[in-house]
Amino acid sequence: MRRPLRIGLIGLGVVGAEVARLLLVEQKTLSAQAGRPLEIVAYSTRDPHKQRGVDLSKLPWVASPAELAAREDIDILVELMGGADGPALEAAEVALKARKHLVTANKAMLAKHWAHLFALSKKHHAAIMFEASVCAGIPVVKVLREGLAGNRISRISGILNGTCNYILSAMAERGIEFADALKEAQNLGYAEADPTLDIDGWDTAHKLIVLAKLGFDPAITLEQIPVKGIRDITLADVQAAKVAGKAIRLVASAEKKADGTYAMEVAPKVLDAAHPLAPVSGPMNAITIDAQPVQSCTLIGPGAGAGPTASAVLADIIDLARFDILLEGPLYLPR
Amino acid sequence: MRRPLRIGLIGLGVVGAEVARLLLVEQKTLSAQAGRPLEIVAYSTRDPHKQRGVDLSKLPWVASPAELAAREDIDILVELMGGADGPALEAAEVALKARKHLVTANKAMLAKHWAHLFALSKKHHAAIMFEASVCAGIPVVKVLREGLAGNRISRISGILNGTCNYILSAMAERGIEFADALKEAQNLGYAEADPTLDIDGWDTAHKLIVLAKLGFDPAITLEQIPVKGIRDITLADVQAAKVAGKAIRLVASAEKKADGTYAMEVAPKVLDAAHPLAPVSGPMNAITIDAQPVQSCTLIGPGAGAGPTASAVLADIIDLARFDILLEGPLYLPR
Repeated sequence: MRRPLRIGLIGLGVVGAEVARLLLVEQKTLSAQAGRPLEIVAYSTRDPHKQRGVDLSKLPWVASPAELAAREDIDILVELMGGADGPALEAAEVALKARKHLVTANKAMLAKHWAHLFALSKKHHAAIMFEASVCAGIPVVKVLREGLAGNRISRISGILNGTCNYILSAMAERGIEFADALKEAQNLGYAEADPTLDIDGWDTAHKLIVLAKLGFDPAITLEQIPVKGIRDITLADVQAAKVAGKAIRLVASAEKKADGTYAMEVAPKVLDAAHPLAPVSGPMNAITIDAQPVQSCTLIGPGAGAGPTASAVLADIIDLARFDILLEGPLYLPR
Repeated sequence: MRRPLRIGLIGLGVVGAEVARLLLVEQKTLSAQAGRPLEIVAYSTRDPHKQRGVDLSKLPWVASPAELAAREDIDILVELMGGADGPALEAAEVALKARKHLVTANKAMLAKHWAHLFALSKKHHAAIMFEASVCAGIPVVKVLREGLAGNRISRISGILNGTCNYILSAMAERGIEFADALKEAQNLGYAEADPTLDIDGWDTAHKLIVLAKLGFDPAITLEQIPVKGIRDITLADVQAAKVAGKAIRLVASAEKKADGTYAMEVAPKVLDAAHPLAPVSGPMNAITIDAQPVQSCTLIGPGAGAGPTASAVLADIIDLARFDILLEGPLYLPR
């Protein structure tokens, strides 16, 4: 078999632990898909002794993420720590400068440091893969980058935050208060470590900016998006909408206007029952891409949770593993 | 700029003409996406003088598709002729043996000659790309091959034929007869050249077999799928379903059972209004993939038509153009 792809993993939260678990438990299947063994070589996390449902005790633990990123025995860095700056950014920079490909779920870091990180990527010929940064396992980054690469994108819109959609759905379906619905979302592992990022719309805005940079123009910045979250939505609001046969959803949209400028927004909207986004409930996300010549493409799936997000991280890892062996064989081996 | 990707195009029907038109009209944008110029070098079609809305008169016309496939000045063959055997298959074989990548929309050829063609692909290190073979511009081949590569697929189901869905929708929405709805679908360019392939369910079955081979096992064959089309569905059937708040849809499904065998079927189904596939109307297609760890992923978009199908062909061409330059630079250049 071919040379293993050697993975350095930083961050063992809900998603990181699930990625590690799958890479160990499904090692054989995943390696077959990748065309070569996928091996975690070392990992970094604040407390290596914390119970996470996965046993990494046989692997070396490295205290510093940046130090792990610099190790000569890793081919790619998988960053699942989060945080726009600080140790995640430092480790990403170290990895790219050392020509190691970067896999990240960190939409906040990408939203803030896109130009800087992609300049490093270009200079050092190291890829940045970030499927997990937007809507978990829904492969929207791949669809925008590749699947619709022959299109002119005119509009990207959807429900991009599982926590907010879970809260709004729970309030409407079960008549519970905002705070209780948020607590449920946290207990189910949907919410960000800091849930204000979810409910104030910033997580949605971070995802929208990544999609707008991909689909429209990498120069678009977060400051161009008016952002309103769902913090002020009351049970009475949700119930009034329901009585009128409508549904409240936190909707993100970015549209290229005829004059070449962009109309972008994150805000709660009262949608008619017939609106395609109205039936999207619970932690589900949905994205509609309007483009020519494809006309439209809609993707629906769970937008949060350990498993769905791990699916995206694994896809990026497998892509990198396959890319590295392109020279030796056919592009894809069917399952 | 980098070396051009030189394209040989065979087949100038509705889809082929649109691909040629876009490669000429959008040459600059598409080449920027691909990272190198995309150039049609020569083409083959029965009648080079037929009016198609695209002027290829400056390019060499080659009478024989296989002869075009063998030309030393092409890097990839784009096959949009159709037909499971005959000149399309012969040209595909010639291309792969000459180490030229193959882009095809030909689900009938893939369904029948999968093992043979992929053996050639493997032996000669030439890729087979076939996004356009299933559900036009919906990037479901890419999602199964790459976006969900880290998953175990348990079920693939959906509406895979735009013509049938158009007919069933038109009958329900406007109360028109089957034959009239079929004529409309043909006039709109949705139907296959031989519409019995659509209405008897074989086009759907060809697509299901491609998806099942990708998601489950390349050894699955067409003979394993019981196929029933919509030829016998009457206006009375459709209207009775509508009165009961239901909708008739031609549904394809393939499921991996607990014992490792597969349950597969193509058949018209009476769906409750709440069924996710019930609201999919007109020429729209929808595919739901159930898998772990992603849980589920649904893709919706136009399943037929020149533009949407051309979108898929262009994506495959751009993928190949990017793959060939992997060694020289970063994997992706953001738009």
